[in-house]
Amino acid sequence: MWNSADWRVIRVDDAAHPAFYRVVCNRHVREFSDLSPAQRQRCMQLVSAVECVLVDRLAPTKINLAALGNMVPHLHWHVIARFDWDSHFPNPVWGAKLREPVPPALQRLAVSMDELDAAVIDALSTC
Amino acid sequence: MWNSADWRVIRVDDAAHPAFYRVVCNRHVREFSDLSPAQRQRCMQLVSAVECVLVDRLAPTKINLAALGNMVPHLHWHVIARFDWDSHFPNPVWGAKLREPVPPALQRLAVSMDELDAAVIDALSTC
Repeated sequence: MWNSADWRVIRVDDAAHPAFYRVVCNRHVREFSDLSPAQRQRCMQLVSAVECVLVDRLAPTKINLAALGNMVPHLHWHVIARFDWDSHFPNPVWGAKLREPVPPALQRLAVSMDELDAAVIDALSTC
Repeated sequence: MWNSADWRVIRVDDAAHPAFYRVVCNRHVREFSDLSPAQRQRCMQLVSAVECVLVDRLAPTKINLAALGNMVPHLHWHVIARFDWDSHFPNPVWGAKLREPVPPALQRLAVSMDELDAAVIDALSTC
């Protein structure tokens, strides 16, 4: 979706949590602390840029940030807009599902995924 | 456990995941992007410092970092050393429990909690 020399950002295809982006390191790095201080700063600048777009366009109940990598030990950050009506809230998206929202999540968001992607790309390109 | 003007660090009391620290913002901030760039940098410097101690002293399978705040919408970072033998691995600690390690987690770590806390405090105090 968005690429630079060091980082790329994709939107995760998750029907339950449509506003779910991933900031991925292009070179192989296992842990956040394996980055240099300047690279860490750049990484979190991109994470913050995605977060700001989600807050601004969707007014979520909360943003969830996580770098886990237990399955794929390659540094990537999850940036997820959470809503008090979503299927897992207040559990993490990796926790127990609590409900099936009707109408489904995608229909409840204030903007379309195309508009959201465009806003994220715009924010990343200027940060 | 460790305090500064802007941030504090505590160890979470979790028998299944003993090497679990939390970096907490002292003033009320909801989202990571609500911090100024300098504050974000300081925050992640502290998170990295804790992470480095866990990597260095425990050689974990993976570090998990997360700022969720769905329950308590006040900025705090989870820094968790994960092991391939732990009760939930490779699931997040908020996911399904997969096993009951024998001997239990605390007995498997390379250092005592007192030594680990002391190393974390030392790292935070010099960063």
